[in-house]
Amino acid sequence: MKIDILTLFPEMFEGVLGASIVGKAENKGLVSFRVVNFRQFSQNKHGQVDDMPYGGGGGMVLKPEPIFRAVEFLTEPVPAVEAKAAGKPGKRPRVILLCPQGQRYSQKLAEELAQEEHLIFICGHYEGYDERIREHLVTDEISIGDYVLTGGELPAMVIIDSVVRLQAGALGNAQSAVTDSYSTGLLEHPHYTRPAEFRGWDVPEVLLSGHHENIEKWRLKESLRRTLERRPDLLDEIEQTPEIKKLVEELKQEL
Amino acid sequence: MKIDILTLFPEMFEGVLGASIVGKAENKGLVSFRVVNFRQFSQNKHGQVDDMPYGGGGGMVLKPEPIFRAVEFLTEPVPAVEAKAAGKPGKRPRVILLCPQGQRYSQKLAEELAQEEHLIFICGHYEGYDERIREHLVTDEISIGDYVLTGGELPAMVIIDSVVRLQAGALGNAQSAVTDSYSTGLLEHPHYTRPAEFRGWDVPEVLLSGHHENIEKWRLKESLRRTLERRPDLLDEIEQTPEIKKLVEELKQEL
Repeated sequence: MKIDILTLFPEMFEGVLGASIVGKAENKGLVSFRVVNFRQFSQNKHGQVDDMPYGGGGGMVLKPEPIFRAVEFLTEPVPAVEAKAAGKPGKRPRVILLCPQGQRYSQKLAEELAQEEHLIFICGHYEGYDERIREHLVTDEISIGDYVLTGGELPAMVIIDSVVRLQAGALGNAQSAVTDSYSTGLLEHPHYTRPAEFRGWDVPEVLLSGHHENIEKWRLKESLRRTLERRPDLLDEIEQTPEIKKLVEELKQEL
Repeated sequence: MKIDILTLFPEMFEGVLGASIVGKAENKGLVSFRVVNFRQFSQNKHGQVDDMPYGGGGGMVLKPEPIFRAVEFLTEPVPAVEAKAAGKPGKRPRVILLCPQGQRYSQKLAEELAQEEHLIFICGHYEGYDERIREHLVTDEISIGDYVLTGGELPAMVIIDSVVRLQAGALGNAQSAVTDSYSTGLLEHPHYTRPAEFRGWDVPEVLLSGHHENIEKWRLKESLRRTLERRPDLLDEIEQTPEIKKLVEELKQEL
């Protein structure tokens, strides 16, 4: 998978792309990154990339040329013969704009993007984007949540992290196991590790009992308890086995 | 405002905390950061910070001691006399755990956290957290969205960015102006800047007309159009002036 990032703040990505699972995925050759300062693609001798908005008002607007030119540089058409030989003549990259007006990001969208071969992220900062960028260049507008951020760089990192960890081979065994717990559709049950007593606070006895069936039952019940308390909406989306139904009834009486 | 971050990957924060508005806020003295590797607070000679879960199963769990000790180091009680003189004898820091089970982050929570004097972020990675950390140390559990990430570092950066930009004096005038457009409760209208024609795509004529009233009306209508198309839920939360009601009717007939 190729991931390209257009930004005026390339230094923001240095620590993040090299660290942990994302850095390891690059070392394993699962993903390659290019971080491009699109100021290089300005045709203005001062490197200007933004300008005043038509119609007046405050703020600056990112000009279309530098961003179009940067994306075109990164997607230079592969000669048709090569592309056909590689079995993907028509494959186009996803060009993703990070903005508050975008589609809300979700694990489902992460799984979709993880199938792509080439992602390009356009990160604006406090400026607006010239509308022609949205209309004629971008394939996806994405927002990571309903809060205001300084720029698109952190949202791009969030999406990259969530997509790279889904690449086959990116996660070691230890991580995969934890990940699996999300696949139940419930919030995770509490975890405990040594010491069994810490400052007078004990680990629940059942976890020290060695009785596997009871441990599994406790975990499922605590997982349901947390989900009921914090995210009851998730319960509607899972398969309600008889055991789950019974535990939910018990919990509702306890609450 | 003091912001402390506990992480096993301190290098991830280097590029982000120094850049752009967050870096400038630190230079202006509006905020101070400490990034602490909590492995330093392990009492184990191998620097161990995680261990196997009680009750079995895969994955590792972050031990309570190193995290308790790190937070206590960062919140060493100020002598009572000094605290009283400073007018805040009982002020405690917010200790924030980043995790998928947490409260969903929002602009409202950003505004609340922006009022605090001291925030401490605990970033785990693929490990789970010993439950006693949640129960006896943490004041807030926060999730930035329904997607799976490698660790708590990127969510901490997202929250820090959103909180720091709300500190008085953090934003310059150019940025503030853009921010204001969020305060309408609608998605932003399209922006355009030079050139007036780019590759055959023109800027809408009204924006070149110099007729302010028409420009404002166009912007409000386009803002409503985008909100209707993408986030109709936001419309329920704003004050519906007669002008807005009329434009919404027009748009519904166009759609």
